[in-house]
Amino acid sequence: MKPVKIGVLGLGTVGGGTVNVLKRNALEIARRAGREIVITRASAKDLNRTRICDTHGIALTSDPFSIVNDPEIDIVLELIGGLSPAKELILQAIANGKHVVTANKALIALHGNEIFDKASAQGVMIAFEAAVAGGIPIIKAIREGLSGNQIEWLAGIINGTSNFILTEMRDKRRNFQDVLGEAQALGYAEADPTFDVEGIDAGHKLTILASIAFGIPLQFDKVYTEGITEITPEDVVYARALGYRIKHLGIAKKTSAGIELRVHPTLIPKERLLANVNGVKNAVVVNGDAVGSTLYYGAGAGAEPTASAVVADVVDVVRALTGDPENRVPHLAFQANAIMDLPVLSSDQFISAYYLRLTAEDKPGVLAEVTRILADHQISIEAIIQKEPNHGKTTLPIIMLTQKTLEHEMNAAISKIEQLTTISGKVNRIRLETLG
Amino acid sequence: MKPVKIGVLGLGTVGGGTVNVLKRNALEIARRAGREIVITRASAKDLNRTRICDTHGIALTSDPFSIVNDPEIDIVLELIGGLSPAKELILQAIANGKHVVTANKALIALHGNEIFDKASAQGVMIAFEAAVAGGIPIIKAIREGLSGNQIEWLAGIINGTSNFILTEMRDKRRNFQDVLGEAQALGYAEADPTFDVEGIDAGHKLTILASIAFGIPLQFDKVYTEGITEITPEDVVYARALGYRIKHLGIAKKTSAGIELRVHPTLIPKERLLANVNGVKNAVVVNGDAVGSTLYYGAGAGAEPTASAVVADVVDVVRALTGDPENRVPHLAFQANAIMDLPVLSSDQFISAYYLRLTAEDKPGVLAEVTRILADHQISIEAIIQKEPNHGKTTLPIIMLTQKTLEHEMNAAISKIEQLTTISGKVNRIRLETLG
Repeated sequence: MKPVKIGVLGLGTVGGGTVNVLKRNALEIARRAGREIVITRASAKDLNRTRICDTHGIALTSDPFSIVNDPEIDIVLELIGGLSPAKELILQAIANGKHVVTANKALIALHGNEIFDKASAQGVMIAFEAAVAGGIPIIKAIREGLSGNQIEWLAGIINGTSNFILTEMRDKRRNFQDVLGEAQALGYAEADPTFDVEGIDAGHKLTILASIAFGIPLQFDKVYTEGITEITPEDVVYARALGYRIKHLGIAKKTSAGIELRVHPTLIPKERLLANVNGVKNAVVVNGDAVGSTLYYGAGAGAEPTASAVVADVVDVVRALTGDPENRVPHLAFQANAIMDLPVLSSDQFISAYYLRLTAEDKPGVLAEVTRILADHQISIEAIIQKEPNHGKTTLPIIMLTQKTLEHEMNAAISKIEQLTTISGKVNRIRLETLG
Repeated sequence: MKPVKIGVLGLGTVGGGTVNVLKRNALEIARRAGREIVITRASAKDLNRTRICDTHGIALTSDPFSIVNDPEIDIVLELIGGLSPAKELILQAIANGKHVVTANKALIALHGNEIFDKASAQGVMIAFEAAVAGGIPIIKAIREGLSGNQIEWLAGIINGTSNFILTEMRDKRRNFQDVLGEAQALGYAEADPTFDVEGIDAGHKLTILASIAFGIPLQFDKVYTEGITEITPEDVVYARALGYRIKHLGIAKKTSAGIELRVHPTLIPKERLLANVNGVKNAVVVNGDAVGSTLYYGAGAGAEPTASAVVADVVDVVRALTGDPENRVPHLAFQANAIMDLPVLSSDQFISAYYLRLTAEDKPGVLAEVTRILADHQISIEAIIQKEPNHGKTTLPIIMLTQKTLEHEMNAAISKIEQLTTISGKVNRIRLETLG
């Protein structure tokens, strides 16, 4: 069979890594795919920049539209990132009948419904394994590997920067700002780290995972997102003392009331594998009614891990080129006409257990007041640690773990607790999931 | 599209679980596959036995050949296990142009090359995700999810019985025979546990994983297998003291000298995720040149986890029914004409680090004699623990960790050490892998 011709848009970290992997492993990939896969064209903003990849044999251009409009190109790899011109390029590629592989989580999370509709109408594939959890084949696992299951929930460490910061805070007892500075110096965090540390990036990825798990539309606007900026070294230490670790998780759950889509710091039992995923690594637990809990772990970012996912998508697309479109794996795992617009719960309807940290005056009766308020809201307490006041201080920290409760009950209780004259400042609250 | 008709051979644990999952999740599965998948026929040895599944609407027979010969059946699920008549049934199904899904690791490991050849000649698919690590989609991950990589090595806990026994030995300081008895009582171990505890079952699975990772023929006869029967509670305790855990692993490595295929107890650093996979769970680490290390974890056995893999295979086969055979994912991940018969190393050519436990007389100079022998064989020592002799005893245990060495050097050194008059009994030896 004649070689498949690939056009690469973007020669940055992911694009450069993809060129390197496709070249270095050309023989191994052809042994699997049964035909040669060759990058014939690539675009880059600045053609004179030093690159991580060898572009020998690849025709370079600064005009990415010339690639998506080139009739010789079979598959376009969109590795530019961002919303524009990535979206316009993909739509143009679709209009030209080209298949697309992309690593663009923001674009898929925000515009995937429209892109997939147009692709299906044109009979072309949009593959996006690299958009979630880098090199871990998590899209494939959920969409194909667990297709016999009703997925009940999933929970993942899907932002390496946040996980690196939390790991350093735990291992070295440092505070958030310190570690963030280091992560930026190491290149793990962007100059503007908002997307990572505020949970936006994880929210994009969770949007995608939830859609393919439950067969619901992509709806990033309904994801509750909370970052790690409020986590203190004290919380990390108390969590550990109670047998937990704090991880920044994306969680999607199907409950009888609706779908929970949430991204937030979470206490999880320290013996869970997910609690032992450290540094910039990613991992996702997927729970299905037949299979139970499964976990997928690996590098969530980086040039070659992401390239690994891009190339796997390319091989999949190559294999499906001659098949009939209606028998392809659907973009969102479920047939387009079987996507169900199930209700997505607002955060006050979430059900979870909680870690609470209060600063109380060192007086008799404070704990009684707090526990009375919790009881009034039907919130049961699982554990309490009341510390001795620090040398010379008149306040002391109280740490509590609660059982599962409705979030609006917890919000109401916290607001009453914060009004107590014996409690100073805000109540620090972190959700807790046993993932059992 | 009209429903796909499935015939199930065997209604035991896996067959019964598969019937239950396909029935319970029929709607969810059809939402994904785009068409109904219906079990119309099933065979069982004893039609009067009580079953774990509801066979309502399924025509039962005690003659499995009547199913593989039934022109109405599109896909045959071989869930009988064992070599015969499973092999004859599969070959007959192939001859009749039927696709087959099987959970039969022994059959694939021992006769897969022949079965795949015949299937390819007939243009039918043999899917076998359920043959390795139960519900974990590990075959799919390696064969498709990592297709851009040169796989360098993989290491897995792929026998739940052995992992359960080792976990109990560690957590409860019990000995092998005790725990085996309990495992048998709990139904985790067979009445004849040889296949599990001697590493044969893990060897079958490793054979399959190595073939799809490296593109080599299935060759169980070249797998080195060693079980867990010689592991003592002392070894478990010393390993822990040194920062390691003992796991029974299947390991496949590609080295410049050839392929290592080995199943044996292994010390691994306690902070590795694989070291924290406990009880009957399975997990496989796969290392690729682009992606680095990835890990896949879940239930390795049981009715519904295994059914999860069987059903995922069915959906894959259904999707590929109308595609052209040459673009399917090849049975062994690599095109049949690209399978390479790379040399498989014999165990004396393996390279690994070692844990050694010796029983020495409490005399000056013993350690000097032992370390001299190791040095003569170019074996470097990484750590030594020399225990005080127990109350009233004249011998003491010496525990050593070595650096990586060729196995024939280690064998020669051990044989000399065992001849020392100051050393009693056998040297206890366990391989050590950092999996780094």
